[in-house]
Parts: sequence; C-alpha cells; structure tokens
Amino acid sequence: MRFVHDNLPQRVCFGSGEAAASLQREIENLKASRVMVIAAEAEKDLAEGITKNLPIAIWHEDVVMHVPVEVAEHGRQAAAAAQADVLVSVGGGSTTGLAKAIAMTTGLPIVAVPTTYAGSEATTVWGLTRGARKTTGIDPTVLPKVIVYDATLTLTLPVPMSVASGLNALAHCVDSMWAPNADPINAAFAAEGIRSLADGLPRVVAEPFDLEGREHALYAAYLSAVAFASAGSALHHKICHVLGGAYNLPHAQTHAVVLPYVLAFNGAATPEAERRIAAAFGTSRAIDGLQDLRRELDAPRALLDYGFAEESIPEAADAILPAVPPSNPRPVTTGDLRRLLRAAWSGADPREGV
Amino acid sequence: MRFVHDNLPQRVCFGSGEAAASLQREIENLKASRVMVIAAEAEKDLAEGITKNLPIAIWHEDVVMHVPVEVAEHGRQAAAAAQADVLVSVGGGSTTGLAKAIAMTTGLPIVAVPTTYAGSEATTVWGLTRGARKTTGIDPTVLPKVIVYDATLTLTLPVPMSVASGLNALAHCVDSMWAPNADPINAAFAAEGIRSLADGLPRVVAEPFDLEGREHALYAAYLSAVAFASAGSALHHKICHVLGGAYNLPHAQTHAVVLPYVLAFNGAATPEAERRIAAAFGTSRAIDGLQDLRRELDAPRALLDYGFAEESIPEAADAILPAVPPSNPRPVTTGDLRRLLRAAWSGADPREGV
Repeated sequence: MRFVHDNLPQRVCFGSGEAAASLQREIENLKASRVMVIAAEAEKDLAEGITKNLPIAIWHEDVVMHVPVEVAEHGRQAAAAAQADVLVSVGGGSTTGLAKAIAMTTGLPIVAVPTTYAGSEATTVWGLTRGARKTTGIDPTVLPKVIVYDATLTLTLPVPMSVASGLNALAHCVDSMWAPNADPINAAFAAEGIRSLADGLPRVVAEPFDLEGREHALYAAYLSAVAFASAGSALHHKICHVLGGAYNLPHAQTHAVVLPYVLAFNGAATPEAERRIAAAFGTSRAIDGLQDLRRELDAPRALLDYGFAEESIPEAADAILPAVPPSNPRPVTTGDLRRLLRAAWSGADPREGV
Repeated sequence: MRFVHDNLPQRVCFGSGEAAASLQREIENLKASRVMVIAAEAEKDLAEGITKNLPIAIWHEDVVMHVPVEVAEHGRQAAAAAQADVLVSVGGGSTTGLAKAIAMTTGLPIVAVPTTYAGSEATTVWGLTRGARKTTGIDPTVLPKVIVYDATLTLTLPVPMSVASGLNALAHCVDSMWAPNADPINAAFAAEGIRSLADGLPRVVAEPFDLEGREHALYAAYLSAVAFASAGSALHHKICHVLGGAYNLPHAQTHAVVLPYVLAFNGAATPEAERRIAAAFGTSRAIDGLQDLRRELDAPRALLDYGFAEESIPEAADAILPAVPPSNPRPVTTGDLRRLLRAAWSGADPREGV
C-alpha cells in the first residue's frame, strides 16, 4: 500500500428540496453580501426559485459550453462591476465551469448548485476554450467552497440524458480503480459510487420522478468526480477520448459501449479492483454486475450503431496505444486494442474475451 | 438522503519505509526551513531515523499524556524561541496532541507521523488538561496539513496494544454508522475501515512483523478517525465513556467487550448500517463478522473480567441513559441498557438478544 492522497476542502450539503435553505445558510456562513448568480437562461426559473432569500448583486446568464475565453472575460468583468463577493452557480458543467473561470482570476468563493451529473463542482479542474482549442488545468482556487445538492432540481433532466450521464459517472468510477493515481481512498469513493448508481439509475429509468433514485444518481455523480479527479484518467478514458476526437462519436454513448470491454480486459489482471467492483454491484463477477445494469438501462451496445467503421479499427488502435498509461494493470499491445475495439464495434459479449 | 459533510483539507502520504523521503519532500513543499521535531523520549530514535534530512531548528521531548496546559505552554514557548516554521510530530496521540496545542496558538502547520492507531492526526479535535479536568474542542487550525504513514514505524507496537487499539478503531467505524452526523460518506470510510481491520488485525496477531497486516491496520486507523470525527459519538461510545469514567474500567478492553452488544442492539433497527457492516466483514450478518474477528483476535469477552460488578448495572444504566443520542436508530430505555450491560457483564452471546 503506497500512495499520496490529497483530500480537498469542501462542504457538501445534500438534501432534496433544501437548496434555498442551504444556500441562505451557506451564504451567511461565508459572510457574503453581494451574490453573483450564474445561471443559463434555461435554468433561470430554477435558479430564481432557490435564490429568493439571497442578497443578489447581479444575475449573469452568459453561459456557453466549454467556456470560451471571451465568455469568461465577460463574467469576470461583470463580477468586478457588481462588486460581487461570492459566486452562486446553478446549472450543469458549463455553468460551474464559468464560475471556476471567474474564481480563477478573482479568487471569489463559489457555491455550486449542480443540476446534472457532470461532477465539475467536486474538482479543481478548470477548462477554457480559445477558438477551437480547449485548455484545461488544475487550480485549488477554482474548487467550490460549498456544493448544494438538491435532487428535486434534477427531476427534469430527461431520462436518456440521465442514463448517459450516469453511465459516464460509472465509467469514472470503474476507470479510477486502475488509474495512474489509484489508491484505496479513491477506490472506496468509486465503489460507493458504483453501488449508488447501480441502485439509482434503474429507478430513474423506471420512474423519472422517483426522488430516491435521483438522489442516488446525484450522490454517485459527486463520488465519481471525487474519485476520478484524484485518480486520473486511465485506459477507458484514453480509448474514448481518441474515439470521440478522431471519429466524432457521441461522448456518452461511446463511454457506455466501451466500458464493459475495458472491464473485461483489465479486471482479470487486477483482482482487488475486480473484487471491489463486483462487491459494489453485489454480483460475484464485476462484468456480470455491469452487464446486468446495462441491460436494465437498455444501454448503448455497439460502436457500429454510432457510425464507427470497422476499417477504422487498426488506425484507432494505433492512435490509442501511446496514450495508454504505463500504470495500466496489464500491458496493452496494438493487437489487444484491435481486439477490444472490434468487440466494441460489433457489440460482442465481453465475457467471451477481448 | 440528507446530510452536510465537511471534507477536511489534508494530504495523506502512505508508504512503508518512506517516512524519511516523504518528510523531506513535504517539508520542502511547505517551504519550511526551521523544523520543530516533537517526539517523546521513547520515540526519539525512531524520530531521528526519519528526520535526518530535515532543517531541524529544535528537538522537543516534553510530551505528557492528555496534554497538560503547562506542557502545551512549554511547547509554545520552545517553538517561539526556536522560530520554528513547521511542527513535525512523531509518536502517538499525546505527541500529536501536543503539536495541535502548539498549532492552536501559533498557527504553525503540522506534519504528523503517527506511530500508533490513535487517529488524532486526522481530526480537528484538540484536548488540553488543567489539573484533573480535560477540555476538548474543535479548531480547523490544529488539523495537520500532512500525515506521513509509515507502517515500519508501528512494527514495535506490542500485539496486545495493537489489538486493543485496532478494536477501538473498529468501534469508531461501527458506531459512526448510526452517530448523530452519520452520512453515506462517513459510512463509506467506516466500511473501508472495517474491511481493512478485519483483514489486517488477524495478520498482526499471527505475525507481528507482517508489514501488510500492519499497513492495513494503520490505514484503517486513519479511516476510522475520519469517519468518527465527522459522524460524532454514538451509543457505543456513550456507554464506554460512562463505564470508563465511573467504574475505572480499562478503555480499550471496555470497547472490545461492549461493541458486539451495541451492534446486536442497533443493527436490527438500521438495515442499511447492518448491510454495510456485514458486507465489510464479508459475512451475511454483521454480528457474525464481528464475532469471528473477535475470536480470531482472542478479544476481551466480559466486563466481569475487568472488575465491573453486577450490582453496578442499574446505576450505570441510569447514568448512560441521558447521554444516549436522540438520533440512535432505535429508542433506548433504562431496561434496554440494563439488559445490554448484563449481557456484556457476563459475556453472553450477543446473538441471543440483548
């Protein structure tokens, strides 16, 4: 057992229907008196409903995906002009991302109210886009001081998006078991996340307004972000990154399809991760738990359904190989990647070997 | 699901035989150049071995159990006189406690190197004793910035003390499942702690110099402290506190004896905790896992073996009752406490009902 693990300072307030009360209390705790509320137009009503009791200095709606630098600059100027002393973000990853971009240069504390399972609120990772180029980095300043989770705010997240986003969180959990900075603390968070997703997602599908199912999915999204941000990106995410970038495959679906093949490939080489994942699913083999869940969720099955061409497999394998972390629990060859991609392309049963 | 959870900012460095290297790196990271090493005489050799490469300004050996205020004051003056800019504590709970007392007034950062399973290094709790009166409190300033865990430093911890201390950590984990601030994050830490203790302690008993066993016990001590400090004290600890204070029963043995009865009493009323504890032990019932472990460790069995008199049961029950947290998963009556204490007094099988 050998690791260095940084526990990040953050308060997590979790309670359905309590966002307004939690926000009021936390803003008082921070002794803030000039709140900048950041919420895209689509979330405006939601945000108004939960910020009624706050001393709001300014509303800011200019939220754009991937946080273009101009949008970040606009937000920073607005914060300065309004003499804001705290940022309250209400929304998904782009909204949290804008709050982080403003915090990065102003040092303002963030209170994040997530409305999706993106998980950005639990990490020190920021991202900015200049033209077509996205830069990401790590800065403790951008970590929200407080997260307010209220599952009632996620009830309107459409089921397909919930499932896709939930499976993405699941991939974070599974991949963090063998990531470059994998450690037992991350693994404990990840296992708790898997358990909570396996419980919550089927309930969200069966009954989109099931609050407990939503709570479990939201809680799991938090855990997956903590585990993944600490453990780092591993084989699964490297594969999906190449597939998404070079072949324009849809992000969430690619993750959902590829995950069982990576689990089948790595699981046998890392008994401790295999044991932990299986225990979290409550099955004797990890892959059985994952496949049971995927079946229940009617999850995406094959890359060929999303336009990935069989002929691209060799090229994709070559592109992935240099990105494979040296810490992967078993060595990875181009041949391995071709087999894995072919199985994922056709949707073959991962239990039959990859 | 409803909770507020504070994640504390702390770096955890875990590695057997790596304390010297970790200390050097972390002191450099903190840009410190005048180290005050706090180590009792008994740990002096250990401390010298791992601090060779540090810029030491002063050695401080005046460590006394429960941190008398005079001892704290002496330490603070020594730190000021030496112009120390960081405190490195090497030792058990009393040593960490002294470092905290110094940090409380000076604001100096602490790098803690624990040599026991006390767990104080992972909490914001401080304690000071004036005469016979101990005061404790919470202060974020006293939380060590860095913990350096090196299981080789615990190899000389005698087996009986390791078992007693390990069972105390186990009690922290179990009790935090239903404590006043119990939440799923604490429960995940606690479950990981139980798993790690159930794995590590029998190995320490079978082979005191088994490094892996020691690592698991030390790691679990960390987890139990994090979970317990966050969740707060619950039924088990309230009972043991009264028994220890009013009847002078030995701390660790009392914990070891009482735990199964509290688990049997509370477990049935809290299926989620029962499920989590059982899963951590890898048994179908939580109490079976605990009793199997206790048998393997030849753990203390009955309060009568430690001088607790049967006649004291009614009085003890009355003294415990007002301390029972209202959040306990089932209501507790004097009659319940009498039955529980009688069973613990005689060492009856807790599975036969308490």
